[in-house]
Amino acid sequence: MPFPQTPALTTDCIAFDENGAALLIRRKNPPYEGQFALPGGFVDVGETVEAACRRELCEETGIKAGTLRLVGVYSAPDRDPRGHTCSIAFLAKVTPGQPKAGDDAAAAQWVTDWRTVDLAFDHAKILADAERLRTVGGDDITSP
Amino acid sequence: MPFPQTPALTTDCIAFDENGAALLIRRKNPPYEGQFALPGGFVDVGETVEAACRRELCEETGIKAGTLRLVGVYSAPDRDPRGHTCSIAFLAKVTPGQPKAGDDAAAAQWVTDWRTVDLAFDHAKILADAERLRTVGGDDITSP
Repeated sequence: MPFPQTPALTTDCIAFDENGAALLIRRKNPPYEGQFALPGGFVDVGETVEAACRRELCEETGIKAGTLRLVGVYSAPDRDPRGHTCSIAFLAKVTPGQPKAGDDAAAAQWVTDWRTVDLAFDHAKILADAERLRTVGGDDITSP
Repeated sequence: MPFPQTPALTTDCIAFDENGAALLIRRKNPPYEGQFALPGGFVDVGETVEAACRRELCEETGIKAGTLRLVGVYSAPDRDPRGHTCSIAFLAKVTPGQPKAGDDAAAAQWVTDWRTVDLAFDHAKILADAERLRTVGGDDITSP
């Protein structure tokens, strides 16, 4: 590619059940190995960020995303200790079910007390932003 | 960097004056050489997308961005003929003034009839999305 080097593009997916529990994984690999995190990962070349978000959610939790709503873009250079990444976060409408961990996830579960657990990266902020959007947005979640 | 290859990260900046004219540049280089486009460009490693948006706007038009509001994320793999890019688009509050073209811009101007000019890339869609946000959002433009 003739492009200059840019931050690596990632995506994170936020899903809440009807009681406000958040769907989280436990990271299988460093950094933050064993810690709670949002399902997500790198966007492939040739893939939209929305497709990557759905793919990562499904690979790591077995849960399929319905409509997606853009929460925000997180690009602080120090957000990932491995190097500069930029994450596009989406709030996903899902049919709550029993998650099944896969790929980079050692575990996947609905977490009720997500506000108090120690989350990897800047995921506590992303989750808080997503919850604000969820409570403000009501049912008008639309796919971009 | 130990990261897998991802789409290249870019940003585009939308600014309207009080009459709804859009701040556009004419591209100095291929692709779409000579055509109207939004000010924007590649995000540098070590730079937030918001900082890149402000930098590109200033380099290409001489206009300084105030508060920024996220418009959307545009990542269709075919949106740039050079390869896969993902653009983060922001609506910027600016003090309208006489633009001065620089860097990758051969010209910079406020364009009243932007709906009918032939815009590079997917910039017609980005501009339309930004205008919707502007007319819906009123004065609640906030910096992320």
